[in-house]
Amino acid sequence: MGKTLVYPKKESNTANRYKHRATYDLGAIHSIINSSQVLHVSFNPGPSDPFPAILPMIGQMASFDYPSAGIGEPLDCYLHGYVSSRIMNLARASEGDGLPICVAASRVDGLILSLTPNSHSYNYRSAILHGYAKLVTDEAEKLWAMERITNSVLAGRWEHSRVPPDRAEMSSTVILKVKVVDGSGKIRDGGVSDERKDTDNAEVTDRVWTGVVPVWETFGQPVPSATNKVEGVPEYMTSYIASMNAQNRDYAESAVGIPLPKEEQH
Amino acid sequence: MGKTLVYPKKESNTANRYKHRATYDLGAIHSIINSSQVLHVSFNPGPSDPFPAILPMIGQMASFDYPSAGIGEPLDCYLHGYVSSRIMNLARASEGDGLPICVAASRVDGLILSLTPNSHSYNYRSAILHGYAKLVTDEAEKLWAMERITNSVLAGRWEHSRVPPDRAEMSSTVILKVKVVDGSGKIRDGGVSDERKDTDNAEVTDRVWTGVVPVWETFGQPVPSATNKVEGVPEYMTSYIASMNAQNRDYAESAVGIPLPKEEQH
Repeated sequence: MGKTLVYPKKESNTANRYKHRATYDLGAIHSIINSSQVLHVSFNPGPSDPFPAILPMIGQMASFDYPSAGIGEPLDCYLHGYVSSRIMNLARASEGDGLPICVAASRVDGLILSLTPNSHSYNYRSAILHGYAKLVTDEAEKLWAMERITNSVLAGRWEHSRVPPDRAEMSSTVILKVKVVDGSGKIRDGGVSDERKDTDNAEVTDRVWTGVVPVWETFGQPVPSATNKVEGVPEYMTSYIASMNAQNRDYAESAVGIPLPKEEQH
Repeated sequence: MGKTLVYPKKESNTANRYKHRATYDLGAIHSIINSSQVLHVSFNPGPSDPFPAILPMIGQMASFDYPSAGIGEPLDCYLHGYVSSRIMNLARASEGDGLPICVAASRVDGLILSLTPNSHSYNYRSAILHGYAKLVTDEAEKLWAMERITNSVLAGRWEHSRVPPDRAEMSSTVILKVKVVDGSGKIRDGGVSDERKDTDNAEVTDRVWTGVVPVWETFGQPVPSATNKVEGVPEYMTSYIASMNAQNRDYAESAVGIPLPKEEQH
């Protein structure tokens, strides 16, 4: 077993609540990012606007320089966008390290229904990265990132569609590369956890149902377009959908059974 | 029919890409926020930190001053958090209007699989709000917001659990109230949309499957805790789970069939 890499703890990424749920492990954080269909990316539009902006984007963590890097090794975050969008213009105009951004991913795995609203929670996985974003200018790296991002939507889709992108498509698409400065994750699993004041109160325990409702994302039956000419649904699609459905459901259901750590308060 | 209220268009909330997908309609935006299990909330931690922060939070739009206000009327955004979290400390210390924040919600309704990666997309609903956040200090308003937020996790849960919160619970919980300054939403539905260069190319159309994979969130069978004393799953829970499952699936499947607007390019 090799060592486990962790992001350095700084004020900006250190949990001060439910510390036992926090992770700084690169593998855990990168896995949450890479299995999320949508990332929320925050940036500051400029000195005249007091509000940070958030953009939903698609992205993947990977290393172009070290393509064999595993999920637990240092990776860059590649984000897909349109050439004239505001975040791309800001990244293009940014000086020095690039545009400071925050990337977030969260998914809910279950509703934790305990005796009193205060101890209600979700089973969830969330990850945050801070880093500096710059446009990818190398064509080979851009194409490589586009392939990874397309295949994150549906594994194998890139090679089963019309590729490579033509010149117009390459120039209308922009890929942002985020050099990660720090990151953190939070994972909550297990069941309910109530306080003695409620668990000792028969009036409450006799009437309040407690437990977990597992929650997961389901992929439905593919609906062919009116112009589709391929008979049946290709095997790479059916197998991806079946394996994601099984994996999502298994995770949500098995998360319920994981014993709570001793320090868990609720 | 009364008039439909819309958020004012400003530079910060005006779409410059896929304009026909954009909405400024209060009802559409508020509905996306209120049906999201997790909101992503962005704020700036302070002058020494170049990165905006993002926090996953639970929240609801509602009006305490005008409780009868409908979903399409001006509402405040109430966010739930812990008393000593960074965003709460910043909001507590903020002067004037409050802490400038951005609230985002996104959900994926389907994978749009077209002939070439460039025209791939999601069916999705996303909403963004900008506003100024302050702590709710009025106890009645705080309790009222806590009830709404708990019931957004599972309808009817508040009244079926141990309420009201006691003094310790009330003081460890903080509710942020966001006065909304502007907002916008984006909704993409329909099927694939490809360009002539690909639809006229039999080599491509003969081998690339096109269509939509609907995606929706599923609530599973409730798992009672080891200490649960209530026999069976209460009706308010089974009916909520059944109706959410039907509603989520119906939306994702019917979104596929909505014809694309004329101006849709891909």
